[in-house]
Amino acid sequence: MYVRSIENLINEFKKLPGIGPKSAKRIVYFLLKQRKKDIKKFAETMLDMSSKIKFCKICFNISEDEVCSICKDTSRDVNKICIIEEVGDVSIIESTGEYRGLYHVIGGLLSPIDNIGPDEIRIPQLLKRINDGDIKEVLIALSQTVEGESTANYIRKILKAYDIRVTRLASGLPEGGNIEYADEVTLARAISDRKEL
Amino acid sequence: MYVRSIENLINEFKKLPGIGPKSAKRIVYFLLKQRKKDIKKFAETMLDMSSKIKFCKICFNISEDEVCSICKDTSRDVNKICIIEEVGDVSIIESTGEYRGLYHVIGGLLSPIDNIGPDEIRIPQLLKRINDGDIKEVLIALSQTVEGESTANYIRKILKAYDIRVTRLASGLPEGGNIEYADEVTLARAISDRKEL
Repeated sequence: MYVRSIENLINEFKKLPGIGPKSAKRIVYFLLKQRKKDIKKFAETMLDMSSKIKFCKICFNISEDEVCSICKDTSRDVNKICIIEEVGDVSIIESTGEYRGLYHVIGGLLSPIDNIGPDEIRIPQLLKRINDGDIKEVLIALSQTVEGESTANYIRKILKAYDIRVTRLASGLPEGGNIEYADEVTLARAISDRKEL
Repeated sequence: MYVRSIENLINEFKKLPGIGPKSAKRIVYFLLKQRKKDIKKFAETMLDMSSKIKFCKICFNISEDEVCSICKDTSRDVNKICIIEEVGDVSIIESTGEYRGLYHVIGGLLSPIDNIGPDEIRIPQLLKRINDGDIKEVLIALSQTVEGESTANYIRKILKAYDIRVTRLASGLPEGGNIEYADEVTLARAISDRKEL
C-alpha cells in the first residue's frame, strides 16, 4: 500500500535531525489523526517563520528585524563580544543569565579540509566591529573540539594586535560531576585550571 | 532572546510524538539553516497530504480516493478481513507479505471508562460488510493488551452468530528470541500455544 502524499511527507520529516524512518512514519500517522485546521496551522507557522526570519546585520543572530533584539538592547554591555558557532548557541548562553554583552555568530569553524577559512566564518565582520566599536573583551564560546580549539587559537592570534582581553569558557568537571566519570583530558584541564579556595 | 515566529514553530514541533522541547528546538534551528525554497516545499507537502487524504469508505484505511487501493485490488482475497486498530497497522501487516485479504480499521479499542463502545469502533460497519459480502475468516490483529484482548473477545462473541472462522495473531517468543529474556505471560502463552514439530 503506497499513498504518494503520505510518502512525500514521511520523506520530508526524515530529513530532520534525530528523526529516522520509523519516527517519521509515526509522526505522519499522528498528523493524519489531527484536524485539517491544525495541520494547516502547523504548515503556515513554518512558512511564517521562513519568511520572517532574517539574520542580524551586526552579529548574525536570528531576528525578525534588520538588527536583533540583543544588539538593540541598550542595557547590555557593548564592550563585550561573545563568539559562538551557531545561532542556537545564543539562547543557551542567555539561559545562564551570566553574560550581558553582545554576540558574534561565526556560523562554522575553521576547517582547511572543507575549504572553510577566516572569510567563511565572518572574521572580517568581527574585525570591523572591533575597529568601529569600543570592544574590551572577546569571550570565545566555541565547542571544545579540535576544530573549535583551532578556531579559538586563530581568533586569539589575530586579536593580539588589539588591546583586548580574549577569554574562553572554563574547562572542568560539570557541576555535581563525579571525578570517577570524568575523562582524562577534562580532568587534566580541571587540574591545570584549578582555582584558589 | 525571544523571536515569536521561531517560538511558534518550536511549539508546533513539540506537539508531535517523540519530540520534546530540546528536539523541537534543534529541528527548528536546523530548518533555519535550510533554503527558504526547501522549507516552503516541506510546508506545502504537509498541506498537500492534509488536503488529499481521505478514509476509504469500505475499510477506513487511508486513501487518496473514495475506496483505497487494497479494497480496489481484485487480486486480493475478498473472503478475509483483518481487523486492526490504526491505519498505520496496515503497512506493518502488508510488509510481512503473509496476508492477502482485506482490512477493517476500527480506529480504537473498547473502553467503557472513556465511553468508547462498539459504535465508536466501527463494529456496525464491520457487521454490514459481513452481511453484504462473503466473508469466511476474520483475523483479529489487535494489540495484546487488556483493551486489545477485551475488544477481540467482544468481536469474537458477536461473530458467533455467523458461520465465520475467527482467528487472532499467535502469541509467543519473537523470532530469534531467547527464553531467558521472555516475560512469564509471553512464555506461558508460548507453552499453551505450542505446535507439533
